[in-house]
Amino acid sequence: MKNFNFRNPTRILFGKGTIADIKDHVPADARVLVLYGGGSAERTGVLAQVRDALSAHTFYEFGGIEPNPRYATALKAVETIREKDVTFVLAVGGGSVIDAGKFIAAAADYDGDPWEILTTRGSVITRAIPFGTVLTLPATGSEMNSGAVITNAEKGAKLPFSSPHCYPTFSVLDPEVTYTLPPRQVANGVVDAFVHTVEQYLTYPVSAFVQDGFAETLLRTLIELGPKALETPDDYDTRANLMWTATMALNGLIGAGVPQDWATHMIGHEITALNDTDHARTLAIVLPSLLNDQRVPKREKLLQYARNVWGIVDGGEEDRIDAAIEATREFFQRMGIKTQLRDYGIAEPEIDQIVTGLQEHGMTALGEYGVIAPEDARRILEAAL
Amino acid sequence: MKNFNFRNPTRILFGKGTIADIKDHVPADARVLVLYGGGSAERTGVLAQVRDALSAHTFYEFGGIEPNPRYATALKAVETIREKDVTFVLAVGGGSVIDAGKFIAAAADYDGDPWEILTTRGSVITRAIPFGTVLTLPATGSEMNSGAVITNAEKGAKLPFSSPHCYPTFSVLDPEVTYTLPPRQVANGVVDAFVHTVEQYLTYPVSAFVQDGFAETLLRTLIELGPKALETPDDYDTRANLMWTATMALNGLIGAGVPQDWATHMIGHEITALNDTDHARTLAIVLPSLLNDQRVPKREKLLQYARNVWGIVDGGEEDRIDAAIEATREFFQRMGIKTQLRDYGIAEPEIDQIVTGLQEHGMTALGEYGVIAPEDARRILEAAL
Repeated sequence: MKNFNFRNPTRILFGKGTIADIKDHVPADARVLVLYGGGSAERTGVLAQVRDALSAHTFYEFGGIEPNPRYATALKAVETIREKDVTFVLAVGGGSVIDAGKFIAAAADYDGDPWEILTTRGSVITRAIPFGTVLTLPATGSEMNSGAVITNAEKGAKLPFSSPHCYPTFSVLDPEVTYTLPPRQVANGVVDAFVHTVEQYLTYPVSAFVQDGFAETLLRTLIELGPKALETPDDYDTRANLMWTATMALNGLIGAGVPQDWATHMIGHEITALNDTDHARTLAIVLPSLLNDQRVPKREKLLQYARNVWGIVDGGEEDRIDAAIEATREFFQRMGIKTQLRDYGIAEPEIDQIVTGLQEHGMTALGEYGVIAPEDARRILEAAL
Repeated sequence: MKNFNFRNPTRILFGKGTIADIKDHVPADARVLVLYGGGSAERTGVLAQVRDALSAHTFYEFGGIEPNPRYATALKAVETIREKDVTFVLAVGGGSVIDAGKFIAAAADYDGDPWEILTTRGSVITRAIPFGTVLTLPATGSEMNSGAVITNAEKGAKLPFSSPHCYPTFSVLDPEVTYTLPPRQVANGVVDAFVHTVEQYLTYPVSAFVQDGFAETLLRTLIELGPKALETPDDYDTRANLMWTATMALNGLIGAGVPQDWATHMIGHEITALNDTDHARTLAIVLPSLLNDQRVPKREKLLQYARNVWGIVDGGEEDRIDAAIEATREFFQRMGIKTQLRDYGIAEPEIDQIVTGLQEHGMTALGEYGVIAPEDARRILEAAL
């Protein structure tokens, strides 16, 4: 096992009816800004529950946070915070609204130009106004980590940052609010959580029994319950397990003390930049092809993955690896997500653009060994045509 | 899954050489009191490493914390804190020293009679001076939770307390410091962590895929690596996995959202009160007998335990349950821990005393259903003679 430094102070309020508990976790004298995205928070009644919970508090609302949250929009929220003397931010939504909440909470308490938060990847952050979240879409894990991504449309940049000051104070996870999610978002969330887990698990063995066993639990849970969530959207236990799984997939625990990959994410980001394909779908394209391409360095973990996640124990080693990769692809397809570039209108010429994008963004040494270059990505993408 | 409220803010500094990192996690201007127990912290060189790490800090030392830490001793440490104007407590040792550290940190910052902390089980605690730990014995999980037990010898009382203010700020887990532990303590630690996990897992199913899978991972790890730690005491990966497993077994995560039992612990405490048998050994006596006695209410989870922890899949249901209970008993024995009352000089007359102890301490409704009465405990103990 590798050395690690792990801390995660976010409180999780999990279960039916827990939105009402917000009132006990926001200071009584706080002046709250409730952030949300489009119309779904209103339509599904989540915002009504939040307003009820805050009925004894002073609060304001700020809607219109975009799916890839925009820098300009976040700055407007910061203005509102200053105007209204807000002391607590409550982000109600999925990863985008929560990511925006992190940036807004940090920027509102930052003395310099907030753009510096993004150009330094968060290292200039020394404090943030306290913020909580009400999660409506299990996927990104942002509700229990300290990272976020903000898009600056004017500059054509999508920049990540993180800071130990950007953990939510609390996050409310009520599985019932996920019943009404569109199937496309459910599928994206399941695949996103799956690939988050794989990026921290399917590398090379370091004798991390706990981390490996936890990761395998999350993967098996997603495989068993992901399709069930599509079939019976209002099954509480299915939704509860998927919600908790997505949170555990990226809260730092399974990645502590083990190598991490993230090449699939980096290559996937360039596909989204190209034609706005959903993030999770880009992962579903890249991952099976990358696993096949990297079967030599990932050999031992691929065999472990085959055995412990898919129950594949018969046949030669190459056959078992093939079967595990094929099972992964079939799982994504069972979730209604296609896994070839052509399914998204991408052909040979666009691969050039993706490879150029990797070069331009400095993504020249990817993977757990730092040896996947853009030309390796080209080979991986060509095999996914 | 049941609703839950989970938060654990302790930072874990894990791995080889991490004692040196203390210097970055204790405020530079802190006045530190280093707590320790008997001679082993000195003898093994752990204290020397701590002194090196704190060489730029002002620090004092307070040794002699007992294995079942005493109230009177803790009060003396509180006196030292006040005399020396100490602002940070560093507990160096196993669960006893860390438990004492929690009480001392809370008592030093409490305005009333510190005895109230124990009579209220910690509910009067509103703050504590910050404290960290250097763990030398993986077992109790105290390094990443907020509970402790203090013994008042004069009053013949052993009282637990907990408080959200009593999480360590950080805990250093360096597996190398465990190489020199006596085999008896290694065995006790493994069995203690095993039974902590079982108390939160082997109840009745609530469709908690994540918690169950995590618990099964911890149990399988202890079964595979516990005996290895006895055979090859200086195998780093074995020690690292056991250390992290013991911490994860009682930091709140696997118990969040699931029923909990703890009857084995409560009955075991009375055996220790009777004749000072090691805590872990009392658990090894009670657990197999309790599982057999409670095989009807625990049926579904016993079958899951047999399958997922022990790989027992053949035979009828009763046979599989028998085999899993027998495997549990054999595992304890393989760790060098005997599992019958007679092995510890306890016979029929002492069972009366144990049952009376349960009555007197109000332990009249134990287990996940709250239906195990002292007379049920008598039956469980008689079957363990």
